[in-house]
Amino acid sequence: MKGEDRPIYLDHNASTPVLPEVVESMLPYLREQFGNPSSSHPYGRAALEGIQNAREQVAGLLGCEADEVIFTSGGTESNNLAIRGVAAGRGDRRHIVTTVIEHPATANPCRQLEREGWRVTWLAVDGTGRARVDEALRAVGGDTALVTVMHANNEVGTIQPVEEIARAARARGALVHTDAAQSAGKVPTEVEQLGVDLLSVAGHKLYAPKGVGALYVRRGTPLQPLLRGAGHERGYRPGTENVASIVGLGRACEIARRDMEAEASRVRALRDLLHERLRAEIAGIELNGHPTERLPNTLNVRFPGVRGSAVLAGAAEVAAATGSACHEGGEAPSAVLTAMGLDAEPALGAVRLSLGRSTTAGQVSRAAEALIRAWAAARG
Amino acid sequence: MKGEDRPIYLDHNASTPVLPEVVESMLPYLREQFGNPSSSHPYGRAALEGIQNAREQVAGLLGCEADEVIFTSGGTESNNLAIRGVAAGRGDRRHIVTTVIEHPATANPCRQLEREGWRVTWLAVDGTGRARVDEALRAVGGDTALVTVMHANNEVGTIQPVEEIARAARARGALVHTDAAQSAGKVPTEVEQLGVDLLSVAGHKLYAPKGVGALYVRRGTPLQPLLRGAGHERGYRPGTENVASIVGLGRACEIARRDMEAEASRVRALRDLLHERLRAEIAGIELNGHPTERLPNTLNVRFPGVRGSAVLAGAAEVAAATGSACHEGGEAPSAVLTAMGLDAEPALGAVRLSLGRSTTAGQVSRAAEALIRAWAAARG
Repeated sequence: MKGEDRPIYLDHNASTPVLPEVVESMLPYLREQFGNPSSSHPYGRAALEGIQNAREQVAGLLGCEADEVIFTSGGTESNNLAIRGVAAGRGDRRHIVTTVIEHPATANPCRQLEREGWRVTWLAVDGTGRARVDEALRAVGGDTALVTVMHANNEVGTIQPVEEIARAARARGALVHTDAAQSAGKVPTEVEQLGVDLLSVAGHKLYAPKGVGALYVRRGTPLQPLLRGAGHERGYRPGTENVASIVGLGRACEIARRDMEAEASRVRALRDLLHERLRAEIAGIELNGHPTERLPNTLNVRFPGVRGSAVLAGAAEVAAATGSACHEGGEAPSAVLTAMGLDAEPALGAVRLSLGRSTTAGQVSRAAEALIRAWAAARG
Repeated sequence: MKGEDRPIYLDHNASTPVLPEVVESMLPYLREQFGNPSSSHPYGRAALEGIQNAREQVAGLLGCEADEVIFTSGGTESNNLAIRGVAAGRGDRRHIVTTVIEHPATANPCRQLEREGWRVTWLAVDGTGRARVDEALRAVGGDTALVTVMHANNEVGTIQPVEEIARAARARGALVHTDAAQSAGKVPTEVEQLGVDLLSVAGHKLYAPKGVGALYVRRGTPLQPLLRGAGHERGYRPGTENVASIVGLGRACEIARRDMEAEASRVRALRDLLHERLRAEIAGIELNGHPTERLPNTLNVRFPGVRGSAVLAGAAEVAAATGSACHEGGEAPSAVLTAMGLDAEPALGAVRLSLGRSTTAGQVSRAAEALIRAWAAARG
């Protein structure tokens, strides 16, 4: 399927289209600039310049110094490097604080450390999907190495009080990491504002390609590399750099920074229009997530009396998901929604509609119609 | 610098140009096919099909089943996953056998395990850069978890007797891994022929992009993942797949398989011509590496009475290296050459000339002239 025959894409939280400007920025590095950045001849120097420029661009979005940005293979590696890298770097403290609604790329490294004898505190969330700051603060003690709390949830879009948690945690000597895979490019993610020591970025969530990401590492953070090899990325991440995709990530961050405010307003208005349309026709449809502290592009709703999977199956004109793409296939209720206090049956009514830069008002209208029709048919 | 103004590229062991057909194969996945392969809508399915096709193509080059191929972020990650993944998967055996001339992406994970209490045997090599099979066999015991021996050396191109070592090691219950980053696509790397359980491939060494690689894992091999996250790559390697680059790697493997025999003959003839030209004019120039058991594209020579860096500095028309790109910058003699028995001074005379698909007879002539001239000038 191609172009206009394809369903309306409302699954930007699963993956975003690569922006044409981003593809253009990459092409020279897939064609003539093929040198190894470690080579000292002109081919190598040209590749190195591409990376250095990209590092500045990523740092621009995050409000940090270029040398605090480490390129990785994506959000999963960034989270693993942050969590296991700090665990290995701070042998004196063997406690981690996180939440029950993290992405598996955070939750599973934490579980692995738990199996290895670390203590992990799993913070609960309220009905809107937010961790409670006071509970977080009670959990952080003198043995806490790291607090890792996602910036925005991938399923419901709820934004966590990272700033407040970070301020108190750092005052107690804990390091703070946030998984900003879903928030970077959509809402401000300046590291000084958030007050974090480590922050993960995933390229394909902000219109750069899959297979590239970044980790912000505040200067002086004790971090051990996850992979061992040659001395790339100042010793934190060996392996010949993924030059073309790094260049694309840099360009995507530059564009995100430039357009964030206008694009957030635009997409928020479209999302709220979609919500309005659904509410007008479907009595009892409910929002999952925080009413205001939420990503501007994300609308997770539960359809009354039917399964979300049935609604999506009946609305072939819409490409969306019942939850995270990483959990597709199962018919178990979302762990995020059950953590937010929902019973299995209402949780199974959920559909995540995540809008993006290419979403238009016309698409929103057509998607709303299709979803309403599919809901009515599924309800029988 | 662009096109014909640029130096003659004789550094294919550092990185290869991405083939135009490979770039073409990737473009749809950087443009319209942007879905997350885990998504069940048409965007996701199209991306998944791209990966599945690529997996077949990689398996075709390696002579294995598609489900024995795991995609990674490159050779470094593949080696780390093989070594640390087996170490974690086989807690009962705490001994590893490797050689003194491995790439840092193998040597450093081994060193890290050594620090963690594992016993590591570092096999010596002879003057041609080959490990001795009998020494390898004596090293393998009942507590040996893994034997990891590179297939071909990145600096001198010497091909190791992986087949003989693997046969004996596996008879003693050890698993066998080979780093085929330099050999895949240049010489046959069928896993049954080699008799290995794990084999690493690096995309950018065989005309695919940087930032993608593969690890062959024989069915039934006890391997633990290095990263933790969602269940991608059958649980061995979490993280949204690097779809476009994986598609490119698949296409590159397909082309390598198709052209290997003809291209190996062609490039070997050019390499031998280059060698001949240098020998005709430079008395005392010596070959580093095995005279015959060597990659067809690799010519590592030592210039008499001068440093290799001085020759390359004087031959701006040629882009080559004194050793591995991963070691650029230092003026220490190559550890590979000193392991082969060379003293520091002759070792510092080395230049690695690595040819590739774009290398022509005209380039070889011009490169030979430039190198001879630069050598004469450097000698003073």
